[in-house]
Amino acid sequence: MPTIVVDVMPKAELLDPQGKAVVGALGRLGIEDFSAVRIGKRFELTVDGEVTDEVLAAAKKIADDMLSNSVIEDVVGIEVVE
Amino acid sequence: MPTIVVDVMPKAELLDPQGKAVVGALGRLGIEDFSAVRIGKRFELTVDGEVTDEVLAAAKKIADDMLSNSVIEDVVGIEVVE
Repeated sequence: MPTIVVDVMPKAELLDPQGKAVVGALGRLGIEDFSAVRIGKRFELTVDGEVTDEVLAAAKKIADDMLSNSVIEDVVGIEVVE
Repeated sequence: MPTIVVDVMPKAELLDPQGKAVVGALGRLGIEDFSAVRIGKRFELTVDGEVTDEVLAAAKKIADDMLSNSVIEDVVGIEVVE
């Protein structure tokens, strides 16, 4: 069954304390290859049937209204897989 | 600067209560296009410099050891962007 993947990340101008914690832990472990880590969410929406334009529009609407908080997050990607 | 994106999802055989809650809410709102929702994490690792094979190997190692809990989660993707 087709799946729509929605990626949501914290806005670039906001601190991401989880990501900061990870990058700090990496530093303490001696891994210095990464200068920043940001942590967001990935939603997999399984579509019942075909991915029509309406289904895609519905996915975009719920990505904006329900899956992300537009005050602190951006929807960075919506793509259909398989 | 190049970024390595790591996607982590709950294992398919496990319940995902957050996703179940979203799909239930969609049903109550009258949106019936989606039969399932699963919620995972998306990590953006900013690389200091070039993405060499070693950096990619380091990213894979921390994806398995630190960014995911292999008991309940799978690393479903590691890709370099821009």
